[in-house]
Amino acid sequence: MTAGIVVLLSGGMDSATLLWLAKTNAEVVRAMSFDYGQRHVKELAAAEALAKEAQVDWSIVGLRGMSQLLHGSSQTDPTIPVPHGHYADESMRVTVVPNRNMMLLSMAAAAAINWGTPWIGYAAHKGDHAIYPDCRPEFIQAMRAALALCHYDDGVELWTPFETLTKDELAAIGQELGVPFELTWSCYEGGARHCGLCGTCVERREAFVLAKVPDPTEYA
Amino acid sequence: MTAGIVVLLSGGMDSATLLWLAKTNAEVVRAMSFDYGQRHVKELAAAEALAKEAQVDWSIVGLRGMSQLLHGSSQTDPTIPVPHGHYADESMRVTVVPNRNMMLLSMAAAAAINWGTPWIGYAAHKGDHAIYPDCRPEFIQAMRAALALCHYDDGVELWTPFETLTKDELAAIGQELGVPFELTWSCYEGGARHCGLCGTCVERREAFVLAKVPDPTEYA
Repeated sequence: MTAGIVVLLSGGMDSATLLWLAKTNAEVVRAMSFDYGQRHVKELAAAEALAKEAQVDWSIVGLRGMSQLLHGSSQTDPTIPVPHGHYADESMRVTVVPNRNMMLLSMAAAAAINWGTPWIGYAAHKGDHAIYPDCRPEFIQAMRAALALCHYDDGVELWTPFETLTKDELAAIGQELGVPFELTWSCYEGGARHCGLCGTCVERREAFVLAKVPDPTEYA
Repeated sequence: MTAGIVVLLSGGMDSATLLWLAKTNAEVVRAMSFDYGQRHVKELAAAEALAKEAQVDWSIVGLRGMSQLLHGSSQTDPTIPVPHGHYADESMRVTVVPNRNMMLLSMAAAAAINWGTPWIGYAAHKGDHAIYPDCRPEFIQAMRAALALCHYDDGVELWTPFETLTKDELAAIGQELGVPFELTWSCYEGGARHCGLCGTCVERREAFVLAKVPDPTEYA
């Protein structure tokens, strides 16, 4: 693949698996997380713990200044309830943070250019496509083209090895790579334990079951 | 054009001209600026004054958390001198803030979606192409495609009416629109007055001369 890569690490099981996969492919791996005022701050603590466990440099970028402009999503606006049910439900639309992934990719790219490791890893997978516009293959393809042109020479390369995989396939890959899933955080609620009911908890549980991977998560 | 638009307003003469042009085209116009740790903070004060004069809502987004990752550019690193000479010189490469425009466009797009005015205006012009990779037509075209896919429905539209124009053509348009050029700020140095010597001052002076527009700038 490449000598160096920056992995977007949310703290969930998908990006954790990508981080472990990156370590088997690149010499220098860095992880990057963003504080954009997300309700589920436990995600950031999970990202930090995962980066430490993976023994990679971790950067957190403060984007709270942006959150004042990001109303209308249950993920950044505490007055909007997190929907329960299945991930692909229409009700999950309220969890979309507008254009979040373009923002995160653009900042990771800037940092990657600075660090001289012009690859970024992004864990979008097949199951995300249904509800998140900025996880669709056509969006990823357009971003790939823009990132290739954003700087001199070949710009920044986008590595998205999970694009055609389902979440349970990721769980299986993660188990093989030894990803410490007990350190990952998925729940959209801000509780002490995973709620087990919100869209992303439902999706997490299902992935472990389908992949026949032991689920280390304590659900409330 | 559209009922509502968000204009990226740096505080320079190009984006000021775009703001005035937007006002003749759209019903609702907002201006947005970013504090990414740029050395020339006077730019932000200029943006604020311009928005006030244009009587449009102005938002400033704090991105200082990002500047820790943006070393190596004279625009964000005070230890790197600002080059003097012509804008198209190889030496101007040091003024490039890596991937800056993708970051700004992605954030303006997020805000535009939230405000329900899914158009963003970006004042890249022909003279920028030589040195800034993220001002080239092919980059703009790739961003246009990505922005169209970043959200539901038609995503966000990118308005770049200056793409094929030179800076002196912009100066002429600005004069016709009544842009208060005396409120704009171009200089890359952090001084009280425009230095008159850095690449962007040289470009500014030339534009006024070529366009036969009176230059209201006090140079040091």
